[in-house]
Amino acid sequence: MQLSTKHLLGIKELEPADISLILQTAAQFKEVLQRPIKKVPSLRDITIVNLFYENSTRTRISFELAEKRLSADTINFSASGSSVSKGETLLDTVNNILSMKVDMVVMRHSASGAPHFLAKHLPNTGIINAGDGINEHPTQALLDAFSIMEKTGGLEGKKVVLIGDIMHSRVALSNIYLLKKMGAEVMVAGPPTLIPKHIREALGVEVSYNVGEALRWCDVANVLRIQLERQNQVLFSSLREYNLAFGISRRLLDSIKKDIVIMHPGPINRGVEIDSDVADGRESIILQQVENGVAVRMAVLYLLAGKKSEAS
Amino acid sequence: MQLSTKHLLGIKELEPADISLILQTAAQFKEVLQRPIKKVPSLRDITIVNLFYENSTRTRISFELAEKRLSADTINFSASGSSVSKGETLLDTVNNILSMKVDMVVMRHSASGAPHFLAKHLPNTGIINAGDGINEHPTQALLDAFSIMEKTGGLEGKKVVLIGDIMHSRVALSNIYLLKKMGAEVMVAGPPTLIPKHIREALGVEVSYNVGEALRWCDVANVLRIQLERQNQVLFSSLREYNLAFGISRRLLDSIKKDIVIMHPGPINRGVEIDSDVADGRESIILQQVENGVAVRMAVLYLLAGKKSEAS
Amino acid sequence: MQLSTKHLLGIKELEPADISLILQTAAQFKEVLQRPIKKVPSLRDITIVNLFYENSTRTRISFELAEKRLSADTINFSASGSSVSKGETLLDTVNNILSMKVDMVVMRHSASGAPHFLAKHLPNTGIINAGDGINEHPTQALLDAFSIMEKTGGLEGKKVVLIGDIMHSRVALSNIYLLKKMGAEVMVAGPPTLIPKHIREALGVEVSYNVGEALRWCDVANVLRIQLERQNQVLFSSLREYNLAFGISRRLLDSIKKDIVIMHPGPINRGVEIDSDVADGRESIILQQVENGVAVRMAVLYLLAGKKSEAS
Repeated sequence: MQLSTKHLLGIKELEPADISLILQTAAQFKEVLQRPIKKVPSLRDITIVNLFYENSTRTRISFELAEKRLSADTINFSASGSSVSKGETLLDTVNNILSMKVDMVVMRHSASGAPHFLAKHLPNTGIINAGDGINEHPTQALLDAFSIMEKTGGLEGKKVVLIGDIMHSRVALSNIYLLKKMGAEVMVAGPPTLIPKHIREALGVEVSYNVGEALRWCDVANVLRIQLERQNQVLFSSLREYNLAFGISRRLLDSIKKDIVIMHPGPINRGVEIDSDVADGRESIILQQVENGVAVRMAVLYLLAGKKSEAS
Repeated sequence: MQLSTKHLLGIKELEPADISLILQTAAQFKEVLQRPIKKVPSLRDITIVNLFYENSTRTRISFELAEKRLSADTINFSASGSSVSKGETLLDTVNNILSMKVDMVVMRHSASGAPHFLAKHLPNTGIINAGDGINEHPTQALLDAFSIMEKTGGLEGKKVVLIGDIMHSRVALSNIYLLKKMGAEVMVAGPPTLIPKHIREALGVEVSYNVGEALRWCDVANVLRIQLERQNQVLFSSLREYNLAFGISRRLLDSIKKDIVIMHPGPINRGVEIDSDVADGRESIILQQVENGVAVRMAVLYLLAGKKSEAS
Repeated sequence: MQLSTKHLLGIKELEPADISLILQTAAQFKEVLQRPIKKVPSLRDITIVNLFYENSTRTRISFELAEKRLSADTINFSASGSSVSKGETLLDTVNNILSMKVDMVVMRHSASGAPHFLAKHLPNTGIINAGDGINEHPTQALLDAFSIMEKTGGLEGKKVVLIGDIMHSRVALSNIYLLKKMGAEVMVAGPPTLIPKHIREALGVEVSYNVGEALRWCDVANVLRIQLERQNQVLFSSLREYNLAFGISRRLLDSIKKDIVIMHPGPINRGVEIDSDVADGRESIILQQVENGVAVRMAVLYLLAGKKSEAS
């Protein structure tokens, strides 16, 4: 089995068969991660550059762990201390990477479309989008899907609600694409200022402005991180008020009288979008998501490397 | 032989037998470091995260060298560019590391007790304290002890004075614990504002406010770094005045008419706590301390990894 | 064949035979880089510290790739987050590295002569200058020479013009030394404020203040980066005016009616010292320079490591 693509730019570009293949491969790597020796030689002699133009501790560490457990050589590059401050264009960076004959690039960038631009100019270098602007964060959606399947047995027909700032969330967009492709039903919930108009028609999702209603509807609630810095943009009145209206509290959850799986992509703002007794409660699979992240990223790197060697 | 602990949180928690085992193991690794090929396969397939919430070039490089010479895989994480700035709690960081199935964590943190907190929640991950607030810096005390033994033949009955800012020094506290446990006599010397009241009773050390008296008493003088930023806290009047009253000068040292071993944990403020002709003089074992640091850290990592594999 | 030196501090210190040996060895490594598996075991068990006191994405990544493709262990150290901010002297840093028994050091520093100082105190550690102040950047000159030879067949008798800020450019100085030693003719061109007086007599190069004249004279034009921050020093009036007077445009290049090879050490200020249609045009070998950089750095590391093992 092979992926239909040489890059992982977004869930939008994947076939359902690609998604299934990644999730099945991740299940095998998750088994490897339970062993005392978690390292396999699959990507020996492969060089991967982690090109992070935005800070991200957990995503960077998760990718670097995945790379090292596959025995790849890794080079880290972060925006601070980069040619970015010398005003180099992304095109020149791309060309330099191409010239240095790097095998794969994992890229996070604040500009939507940056990894697509990279892929267009580097057809023979595997490009993995680790989050681009407000567009996509495909490995997050894949690990979320893996975690839902692991917990509930499948995606088909499951009802998943994404709660929070849908407007600016690349996690939300990647999740919506993936869940819809795999036959799940999707709802988005949050304050009207943080939900794009016409999202129902554009993406085929349900919309709710009432978090209680959303919870009563769903099997799984994926609670998104509120970007604290958006407070200044008057998209919501205050963190306290957001918590009261849309935060997931124990009292709210217990009032639903239904088993709901609780997810969060992290890092958590405890007491804002989710209370600690929910984040750490029995419904939560937040830490399984982190663990599954390494397995899913190993799967993506492994499959793209196979694609690459086939091409050459 | 085995350590009595799965973590290295502080010297306080160690048995004398643990200290002896670490120092003996370090002696073996020091031999390895004299060979042309300094690398051994002991920690192959082990993943270590260096979690530095405070800057520290030499400690971080020393640990990373130790890790690489043991063939471990290393991942570096520093506070700048971390989830810290996104307001993630230490608990969430801990849980994430646990979930990613990292084998060992080397941690430096400005909060005293941070690695203990980590260890409490990660019983199966080896935690090594690389300096926590004003509490402990155990590998520094171990390398200091190793260096004293190497130079003088043993610790038992040796008279060691720690000179400088005892109040805020984790190096001092770890040294006091270690030296007392191993049968050395300890004195602390410095300005009264920088020496905790009741330290004599609490820790069983001698106290002197006169550096000449301290030098006449001791076999070994461990000169601590003055934190230049403390000047603004009016704990001492000025660097110049500190140097005149407590700095170790060649003239002072020669006036003692006795062989004294001079140590410093680095980085040195030349001309403040120690003059260059003393730091670079024949009594100084400052550079041996740096060399021994790598061997001691290899020993700690090796012994804790053995402890870990036994546990699983 | 052996280098005559244990360090690469500058082109000034090299014999022509050294330069030839490095370029021949680089040609062999360039072949390795065309293979699917680009990694060789030559520097296994060798530890290299990349000591970058100035930011430099591409040079650091190029060195790190070269090191990893030779199977060396690498440790990165950058100025931010270093003991530099704690006021440690370069001498103490040097002594620490020596004590930690590192095999090789790649160093970039804003002070001219810093790697020479390091080498003086570390005779048995291979030191490679990755750019020191306004002095030299020897691996850049070597990769430039490699690229010229690859494109034109040789250096002897070739006419090379360096265009731009000759005064402050370590790339220019290293190129002048190398090209003169290897029998090429060299001209420097730029505004009078950016060309040192007496350079003609001191270094044996031609001088022109007219870029059209310089292009008509040369076989190869190496266009240097304009440091945007120098604008405030009134060395030239404005970027726009610099571009009009000294920038390499397509129209200017076509008006010369002669085949000229165009080079640039990067990062490029497009529209300042060079226009995009020239940088990306058929005369440009800018991306070959980047590719050759990895091969040349592999050659330098490999030859110095051989020198080192011979010494021990």
